Amino acid sequence: MKITPEVIASLTGGSIEGNPAVEIKGFAKIEEAKEGEISFIANPKYAHYATTTEASVLLVGDDFEAPANLRATLVRVADPYASLAMLLSALTPKSRKSGIESPSHVDETAEIGEGVYIGAFAYIGRGVKLGRNVQIYPQAYVGDGVEIGDDSIVRPHATIYEGCRIGERCILHSGSVIGADGFGFAPDGDEYKKIPQVGIVVIEDDVEIGANTTVDRATMGETRIGKGTKLDNLIQIAHNVSLGSNNVIAAQTGIAGSTKIGDSNRIGGQVGFAGHIKFGSRCEVGAQSGINKGYRDGSRIIGYPATDIETFARMSVLQRRLPELFKEIDNLKKKQ
Amino acid sequence: MKITPEVIASLTGGSIEGNPAVEIKGFAKIEEAKEGEISFIANPKYAHYATTTEASVLLVGDDFEAPANLRATLVRVADPYASLAMLLSALTPKSRKSGIESPSHVDETAEIGEGVYIGAFAYIGRGVKLGRNVQIYPQAYVGDGVEIGDDSIVRPHATIYEGCRIGERCILHSGSVIGADGFGFAPDGDEYKKIPQVGIVVIEDDVEIGANTTVDRATMGETRIGKGTKLDNLIQIAHNVSLGSNNVIAAQTGIAGSTKIGDSNRIGGQVGFAGHIKFGSRCEVGAQSGINKGYRDGSRIIGYPATDIETFARMSVLQRRLPELFKEIDNLKKKQ
Amino acid sequence: MKITPEVIASLTGGSIEGNPAVEIKGFAKIEEAKEGEISFIANPKYAHYATTTEASVLLVGDDFEAPANLRATLVRVADPYASLAMLLSALTPKSRKSGIESPSHVDETAEIGEGVYIGAFAYIGRGVKLGRNVQIYPQAYVGDGVEIGDDSIVRPHATIYEGCRIGERCILHSGSVIGADGFGFAPDGDEYKKIPQVGIVVIEDDVEIGANTTVDRATMGETRIGKGTKLDNLIQIAHNVSLGSNNVIAAQTGIAGSTKIGDSNRIGGQVGFAGHIKFGSRCEVGAQSGINKGYRDGSRIIGYPATDIETFARMSVLQRRLPELFKEIDNLKKKQ
Repeated sequence: MKITPEVIASLTGGSIEGNPAVEIKGFAKIEEAKEGEISFIANPKYAHYATTTEASVLLVGDDFEAPANLRATLVRVADPYASLAMLLSALTPKSRKSGIESPSHVDETAEIGEGVYIGAFAYIGRGVKLGRNVQIYPQAYVGDGVEIGDDSIVRPHATIYEGCRIGERCILHSGSVIGADGFGFAPDGDEYKKIPQVGIVVIEDDVEIGANTTVDRATMGETRIGKGTKLDNLIQIAHNVSLGSNNVIAAQTGIAGSTKIGDSNRIGGQVGFAGHIKFGSRCEVGAQSGINKGYRDGSRIIGYPATDIETFARMSVLQRRLPELFKEIDNLKKKQ
Repeated sequence: MKITPEVIASLTGGSIEGNPAVEIKGFAKIEEAKEGEISFIANPKYAHYATTTEASVLLVGDDFEAPANLRATLVRVADPYASLAMLLSALTPKSRKSGIESPSHVDETAEIGEGVYIGAFAYIGRGVKLGRNVQIYPQAYVGDGVEIGDDSIVRPHATIYEGCRIGERCILHSGSVIGADGFGFAPDGDEYKKIPQVGIVVIEDDVEIGANTTVDRATMGETRIGKGTKLDNLIQIAHNVSLGSNNVIAAQTGIAGSTKIGDSNRIGGQVGFAGHIKFGSRCEVGAQSGINKGYRDGSRIIGYPATDIETFARMSVLQRRLPELFKEIDNLKKKQ
Repeated sequence: MKITPEVIASLTGGSIEGNPAVEIKGFAKIEEAKEGEISFIANPKYAHYATTTEASVLLVGDDFEAPANLRATLVRVADPYASLAMLLSALTPKSRKSGIESPSHVDETAEIGEGVYIGAFAYIGRGVKLGRNVQIYPQAYVGDGVEIGDDSIVRPHATIYEGCRIGERCILHSGSVIGADGFGFAPDGDEYKKIPQVGIVVIEDDVEIGANTTVDRATMGETRIGKGTKLDNLIQIAHNVSLGSNNVIAAQTGIAGSTKIGDSNRIGGQVGFAGHIKFGSRCEVGAQSGINKGYRDGSRIIGYPATDIETFARMSVLQRRLPELFKEIDNLKKKQ
């Protein structure tokens, strides 16, 4: 099939301005696109590239103001970024693997669904259940008793400790570790005694876990990642944490033990949450924040300790004016 | 064996209030426990669950005030959390593996102790020495010349570079990397020349290393983790760091090169220690702190740059009052 | 060959003070060195050890003031740290491995250069190209279509996703993940749709990637790490980031999506860079800084939000004086 603005408009429900027949051979960022490629403008910061890009087709928003000297054909859509996601999914060739490579270790008690891929040197333990079309890449580890739902993907060197449960359509990137022991020790004189961590991790459907992210098993009960939540790389989720659905959390954030977080939060990178707090839904948390107590639904917070975004901005300005403040007080004292 | 309050009281040295014969089938958190389960109250924040929990037995402290309408049998002990640790250890079935799975790579010069487990696709290099009952999980890597003491556990995808030494009863969780090169480069014009890192890592007895934690080898000599120290996930320990005994360090903390830390410190998550500092013993360091100099034994510090906990609390309050301060100065100026 | 001050002086272009014939058997840090070992003084903080060390030879700078009672032979050089690097490289036995261990998985379409090492349980995908003397350690993963230049080293459990390109003389430490999906999702009602990440990662020559560091593939186009850049452990490089040449970045730092960073920057640990910013060259960035906008070449910045190093120092002092400030204002008000 030739991919043209007409095809794209029909896939995205968009409208065409310009040549509807130009053939598209690939996707590219607007500042790098060449002739025959399609690009997009979702962020107004990049709008000025519209006149200089060599892209043949641009996916733009309904309110995009086309410059006079535009060469590219436009496809106007309601949400260019969402349409891009859809197009990339529709037009990128899928590389679904299947079959079982050798040598791999598949315990004889494991139940393996139809269409499953198991790469070389992967390890599938006792009593494991893999749903249909699950892809276990080479060198991944699936511990005893683990269950993985249909269409989930486990990349090389991902590790799932014994007894954990993974939903459908999940992606576990390389180096992620699901179900390592929670960090629990009881003081015993000068030493610490390990608290056996007998709980598990439950990851619901449609969750993506970034590279080298760690989700610890519960002391008792479950550590839970809710449906549709997306975790970036190098994140720490401690034992007995409960994360609701559709949260998006950027890299290197950490959530300490037993904290409960609601749904649909957007959390920046390198944030730290204290343990045992109850945090709302639909909040925005700025990068590098330190969250030491619960916040209500819809809060917009940042800083260390965290405060609302407006106060933080005002405080940041005033802190830079501290030298001036000290000077003014000296002046006032002199005048007395 | 039936597990009853009587068994539990005899194991923990506790005293019983209520039915001594009820049979226990599992452990659970107090807010999730069902009939036939035992739970505990160590943190007063959870005491109010005592009347609503369905748990049949509760492990509580000597000073716990039993509410009037309590259904559960109580077992009173001096330290409920420590008793829980002990009970979980005593009553949870152990899953000690043994034997050598195939294919695995065990160099013919390696010395393998009695009762050792080596999982499939594990790699045991030249001249490795594994003590008795060491468990090397599938896909773990034990480099040339590594020594591991009795009863230590190396989880899947843990990596131990050549020449490092691990003590007895240690646990290395998945994705931990022991002995990668320290970060040392000498400027050479615009470029950097690598300083070969010819030292090793020594991990003493009873140390636990969290998932995806990294401990770099020394430039020369040793990076050392002292007896009984517990490291959470995603921690960075740089080359030539020396950590004393019985330290407890939460996730995502980093310690820069050549810093020496004493014993029995409790260090929060996402803390950073500068390099080449000498830090005391029995300190408490708050989460996200930045430590750029040494502190005396017993310090309680937090913040960036770190300060004592009382000053930090006062400063945090005063910073929020900065807008007010600026207003007051304006008022004072006007009145003159 | 006997290693003596004469050999060392001739290798480093240094000059000898003392016995030129003493035989050297190893390298050590100055506070730990024994007779027959060579050590160095690059940092004046360690100069006082010169009189107490048992080292037989000391590598020191041209301006080092030799104490009266010195036992060690001195070798004076322009830059002791650089000379140390050179000596360690020249005199440390290399452990270059070669050959292909079994079982490993090498796709029949892969092109394998001369002198390559492929360890047991390593996975080499379809169409991979490995240059001369590349060392793929056991259990490493090299995805379909990956290219790796001459003399590069891939340590155990390093993962390179499909299509990424690695230059010559690179080192990828254990647990590093190159080319996992960038963190891109388009909101779709309450849910998020994954944006397929169809770009790659390009790592230029002479780059070192620390243990458990993650470099995400681009949404479209490339994520790029420039020639000679050195990344420490547990660093996050997001999709479409571009890092120039000869940057040195300490552990646990994160760089958010599409940020462009110039050359020869020195960046501390646990720093966070916001996305979509353009950052200069030859800057110094203090540990734990939060960088939310671009900075000019040669900036020296620190803090959260970041500010120049002098302002930060002044602000840190003044913040501690806040209680005093509030008191003075109270006094002023009373006097009116």
